[in-house]
Amino acid sequence: VLLASRPAGWVSEQNFRIEDAPLPQPGEGEVLVKNLWLSLDPYMRGRMNEGKSYAARQEIGEVMIGGTAGEVVESRNPKFAKGDKVLGMLGWQQYGLSDGKGLNKVDASRVPLSAYLGVLGMPGVTAWVGLLDICQPKAGETVVVSAASGAVGSVVGQIAKIKGCRAVGIAGGGQKCDYVVKQLGFDACVDYKAGALNDDLKAAVPDGIDCYFENVGGDHLQAALACLNPFGRIAACGMIAAYNQAVPGPDNLFFIVGKKLTIRGFIVSDHAHREPAFRRHVAPLVRSGQLVFSETHRQGIESALDALLDVLRGGRHTGKMVVDL
Amino acid sequence: VLLASRPAGWVSEQNFRIEDAPLPQPGEGEVLVKNLWLSLDPYMRGRMNEGKSYAARQEIGEVMIGGTAGEVVESRNPKFAKGDKVLGMLGWQQYGLSDGKGLNKVDASRVPLSAYLGVLGMPGVTAWVGLLDICQPKAGETVVVSAASGAVGSVVGQIAKIKGCRAVGIAGGGQKCDYVVKQLGFDACVDYKAGALNDDLKAAVPDGIDCYFENVGGDHLQAALACLNPFGRIAACGMIAAYNQAVPGPDNLFFIVGKKLTIRGFIVSDHAHREPAFRRHVAPLVRSGQLVFSETHRQGIESALDALLDVLRGGRHTGKMVVDL
Repeated sequence: VLLASRPAGWVSEQNFRIEDAPLPQPGEGEVLVKNLWLSLDPYMRGRMNEGKSYAARQEIGEVMIGGTAGEVVESRNPKFAKGDKVLGMLGWQQYGLSDGKGLNKVDASRVPLSAYLGVLGMPGVTAWVGLLDICQPKAGETVVVSAASGAVGSVVGQIAKIKGCRAVGIAGGGQKCDYVVKQLGFDACVDYKAGALNDDLKAAVPDGIDCYFENVGGDHLQAALACLNPFGRIAACGMIAAYNQAVPGPDNLFFIVGKKLTIRGFIVSDHAHREPAFRRHVAPLVRSGQLVFSETHRQGIESALDALLDVLRGGRHTGKMVVDL
Repeated sequence: VLLASRPAGWVSEQNFRIEDAPLPQPGEGEVLVKNLWLSLDPYMRGRMNEGKSYAARQEIGEVMIGGTAGEVVESRNPKFAKGDKVLGMLGWQQYGLSDGKGLNKVDASRVPLSAYLGVLGMPGVTAWVGLLDICQPKAGETVVVSAASGAVGSVVGQIAKIKGCRAVGIAGGGQKCDYVVKQLGFDACVDYKAGALNDDLKAAVPDGIDCYFENVGGDHLQAALACLNPFGRIAACGMIAAYNQAVPGPDNLFFIVGKKLTIRGFIVSDHAHREPAFRRHVAPLVRSGQLVFSETHRQGIESALDALLDVLRGGRHTGKMVVDL
């Protein structure tokens, strides 16, 4: 699947083109990988824009960017052998060729390989770094996370609980909120689709908010600003509400001054040095079942666009969205 | 001058009441101060609101809050003697009684006493802490400050220059911008009243913005976000655009994520421990004339409201606004 044109507003079918190509043959030092799962993530939307982004933008006519988990089918690189399970950024295609750079072998014997695209992969590190390094919550504090049922949010709240905090999610719909509280163990979850986000959030945080992990922006940020305590910290991980259309910012940003808040935007790739610590901490929690995760699977590369749209607009899925290739 | 009612929107005459009262007599441990200058500052507006603020709100029927510089006329406190020049928070009144708490003797032999309300007082510390401690600019970086001709902004840009940075101001009107560049020595100043803030700011910062010192908010913040460099820092000192009316926030807050920005709100009273370092650094610069300042003087306590309104809406004054009592 190639990017055919840059979207104006919401992504649509017209922005993509599916092409068949012969199976590539690995040259000296190269590895041929059969992609088994494609990861769908909010950041993809930003890369499709013309403008300079924090990372190299996706070029038109090239394979759409994306994280993948797969299996080596042919290797002319001494570091990889046929059958190795690997993570990479091989994009929206069934097979990918790699020179080994950015390709990482993983142990899929104790957790499903696809989990390395979610709870043990980029979304997991994002949650962990954003919560622990950026927000630095203390036991007893209140942590709120938007998009709480998603791949990142679900980890944020569970780690917050493990650290002794009160964890409150914001999610869209009663079903997602049930999942967040009953399956993930958050203390509360506010359904923003119920139409009373400001009041409902206020009621869910009797001691105010100390740490806010932002995935959404817009009215979510506005509601959080009203509840944040003095010296509150906001980890700005995403503002998905504004990816496809401009939305006006909160009209209560003066709380940043009055409450002496710190807002820090971050991109997980700047925190790669924290990955070993993340894995040491989180992998045992996942294996023991103390940290739970869910995945939504869509079938076939043709479903990738719909899967991405669900990620961007908040579909009915919970947890990590992957496409089975 | 007492607060008579809480303003809804812009402050007006109806919100104040002038009362005559007999000159108070100091009791044991008390000091009677003749207030010579009253300081007018943006924070006053926030204290007039009903809501919980970061500091105790101004109560109705009490003397309006405000910093003052004056002279001790009678003392029954061993720490103060008649004739001492003192700074305090004695409010909008010609004489004030103090138990000595929060009253500070200053040396007015080498700089005018009123300067302790501005460049060597709260606005100066605010500028110094916000720039050096919050933004932490490095030599060669670009620092932008809004309300650049004001008591705080004028110090921010001059300290930035002393630290080897490019200093760019934003101010309202050609006259103020001339002052900022020619008198204060900024590298450039953008006149937001010229109607092309986004483009003009962009043109004034060819290498982007590394540090943004925010006094205004609204469209100023929007313009700055567009120009900030990755890992840029924003010291949020004030958002005066929103003090009297709600203004929608910037619609480009996603830059906080994409550019990995840090925004930190602060209130100078939390940084009192930095005042000695501030004075050691800045007082010699002021005495030697390396750091210049200006004051706008209004005459008589009846002019205090107009002076406050000018501070809040950006009048034609430059530098520190004081009322000569």
